[in-house]
Amino acid sequence: MEVYQEIAQLLKKLRDKNPLVHQITNYVTANDCANITLAIGASPVMAEDIHEVREMVSLASSLVINLGTLDSRKIEAMIEAGRMANELSIPVILDPVGVGATVHRTEAGKRIIREVRLTAIRGNLSEIKALAGLKTQTRGVDSSEVISKSEEIFEPMVSFAKEFANQLNTVVAITGVVDIIADGKTVYYVENGHEIMSKVTGTGCMCTALIGAYLGTEHKPLIAVLAGVVSMGIAGEIAFENLDKKSEGTGSLKTRILDAIYHLSDSDISERGKVYEG
Amino acid sequence: MEVYQEIAQLLKKLRDKNPLVHQITNYVTANDCANITLAIGASPVMAEDIHEVREMVSLASSLVINLGTLDSRKIEAMIEAGRMANELSIPVILDPVGVGATVHRTEAGKRIIREVRLTAIRGNLSEIKALAGLKTQTRGVDSSEVISKSEEIFEPMVSFAKEFANQLNTVVAITGVVDIIADGKTVYYVENGHEIMSKVTGTGCMCTALIGAYLGTEHKPLIAVLAGVVSMGIAGEIAFENLDKKSEGTGSLKTRILDAIYHLSDSDISERGKVYEG
Amino acid sequence: MEVYQEIAQLLKKLRDKNPLVHQITNYVTANDCANITLAIGASPVMAEDIHEVREMVSLASSLVINLGTLDSRKIEAMIEAGRMANELSIPVILDPVGVGATVHRTEAGKRIIREVRLTAIRGNLSEIKALAGLKTQTRGVDSSEVISKSEEIFEPMVSFAKEFANQLNTVVAITGVVDIIADGKTVYYVENGHEIMSKVTGTGCMCTALIGAYLGTEHKPLIAVLAGVVSMGIAGEIAFENLDKKSEGTGSLKTRILDAIYHLSDSDISERGKVYEG
Repeated sequence: MEVYQEIAQLLKKLRDKNPLVHQITNYVTANDCANITLAIGASPVMAEDIHEVREMVSLASSLVINLGTLDSRKIEAMIEAGRMANELSIPVILDPVGVGATVHRTEAGKRIIREVRLTAIRGNLSEIKALAGLKTQTRGVDSSEVISKSEEIFEPMVSFAKEFANQLNTVVAITGVVDIIADGKTVYYVENGHEIMSKVTGTGCMCTALIGAYLGTEHKPLIAVLAGVVSMGIAGEIAFENLDKKSEGTGSLKTRILDAIYHLSDSDISERGKVYEG
Repeated sequence: MEVYQEIAQLLKKLRDKNPLVHQITNYVTANDCANITLAIGASPVMAEDIHEVREMVSLASSLVINLGTLDSRKIEAMIEAGRMANELSIPVILDPVGVGATVHRTEAGKRIIREVRLTAIRGNLSEIKALAGLKTQTRGVDSSEVISKSEEIFEPMVSFAKEFANQLNTVVAITGVVDIIADGKTVYYVENGHEIMSKVTGTGCMCTALIGAYLGTEHKPLIAVLAGVVSMGIAGEIAFENLDKKSEGTGSLKTRILDAIYHLSDSDISERGKVYEG
Repeated sequence: MEVYQEIAQLLKKLRDKNPLVHQITNYVTANDCANITLAIGASPVMAEDIHEVREMVSLASSLVINLGTLDSRKIEAMIEAGRMANELSIPVILDPVGVGATVHRTEAGKRIIREVRLTAIRGNLSEIKALAGLKTQTRGVDSSEVISKSEEIFEPMVSFAKEFANQLNTVVAITGVVDIIADGKTVYYVENGHEIMSKVTGTGCMCTALIGAYLGTEHKPLIAVLAGVVSMGIAGEIAFENLDKKSEGTGSLKTRILDAIYHLSDSDISERGKVYEG
């Protein structure tokens, strides 16, 4: 079956099932993550008190762990929730926001990949490299390293993504100008999206929330991660096209990304999708 | 006096008085709650450190306690603030977000109704039932139980709302397809709103913030709660009507709800209001 | 050189440099602060765990300390980050949200000005007066005192701003109907902005974030603070002009403020700027 058809079918199932996505996340982008989860057709629940995360995740179809605005109490709640999800075979996705920027953040990320079995990880190149223990350049929560296909480092990066996915038995998504989605065997490249998206906070977090919604629908990790990445990229393109370029900018863009996800259709996916198998 | 006229008068008074509404709330919807409080004509202040809540609430005209993204420290601050509000006869409204989903959340809700005298409670059916100690079905922060007038459970639910209101000497608002607003004696039904509102996070929280603004204006609890529920419902309808249905969705809807509250007029209330006395 | 030209040049440099602005801030307006930082052309990073703030601020070009939704742990992190910024000569700006409203908040503000060397402070009149130890009237996070040039208290307030700036060797910005920006020697007045901006939460916080972005560009404190205040005021005017007055209100206004900052141009500054030297 063609990949766009698979994504479209998964989106249809998502909207039928309306999966509950438990998110332990940061306070900067939590509202946008909740709203994009609703817009795609799933339901968000944000809960992070250690006394309730085990019970909350047991009601959910997937768990999103996002390391933005991390604090020590939250790390423990993430581990607790992650372990419970593992016990119940509920998929877990990690967004290692800012890993590589500080030792504390990097240690937290590494601890989570040691103690929780992850179905997927989505981050920028710096974050994923730091999580894997490689040297990296990072500026706060932004990657200082951009991957484009023309660069020499592109092929080594693809190999790295596959190896890291293989090592953790997970799906790794490195998002950037070109997105790389790899499990141990297969790799997809996605060229959707628009550079203006990097000027809106939380487009990465929102992408992870979408992946959480797809993972909560059916346990097909590679296609679910791909679906999340493609959906976010296409929504960014539609949002940019719908901007009144004279007066509207990044404020309107965020609103229109949510609108585009709400209206996302099979034909958006099949006509706009730019997915290549590596 | 006709009920729409009473609401319109209360709205006018609210805008003249500009009451300060102290909100101890969750980080997912705090921004929207602050903005809707400003849009209706009141002023929000969010403060939750236990060292300052007594002093902050003493400056306020009402207190909103919202249990979203609850943590243990926040519960203590809510109790402190609630007690101080009681001492000073400042109205308190509780939004029991997610009560029923976890034992921890349910216990927190029950502790608050034991230790703080509430002027009003607003939640969905699952939350209110769980708060009253009844069995319920919940999915995270969403109700799995929807009330519509055609269902057999409708009449028992109305009786329950009245009894619970009577027991706590408070006003109970159960919002859903039909909203039920009851004190011990009177019950109102509200049929305003649009189902798309459930696809925007925080429409419940924002409704509670509006009730807080009305409660802070004049101590007429039943009409204040009714005014908040009707205002939110009408704003949702106007927002939906103003959407460009082809390109705009839930992202734009949230913005337009705030816009509609900002412009809310007497004639919006009298022409669109769908309030029935039970 | 003319002041508008200086601001325009600083804006150009900002967009070339893309400075990283570390913000320890409140959860109500954090998303808007991050987005306005991106919209002007800088990069935000929000991090507040005491274990990582020293390392995070060392990557940054400036540090914003915002006292909204303050808690005890955050105060310690602010002091830590502030001291590290001082060691590295990274500019620090304080937004004393709600100082004067509670003893706890006032004490926190005073502790910060004792323990951290500040490059700039931006707040409303009540907040700045309370920070300086003067008596003030405050309502939560709003100033109850408005400065306009026609009032008798205007001249004493300007003297106060200059003295307080001199005493702390900082730049003081008191924003209101007229904004006063003073270091120990020079004072500017800014008459940009629109009163509707006070009906959107976080316009003060966002102004402080913009100042952080300008301060992170080049170490010219007075002009950087002026640039932030003027940019925010002009963006508010453009946003208001772009509103469809019939259906759009404060919800759309916030979006359009971000849009206006994204598009802010030299000619916006030179044609709309209302800066007067005192």
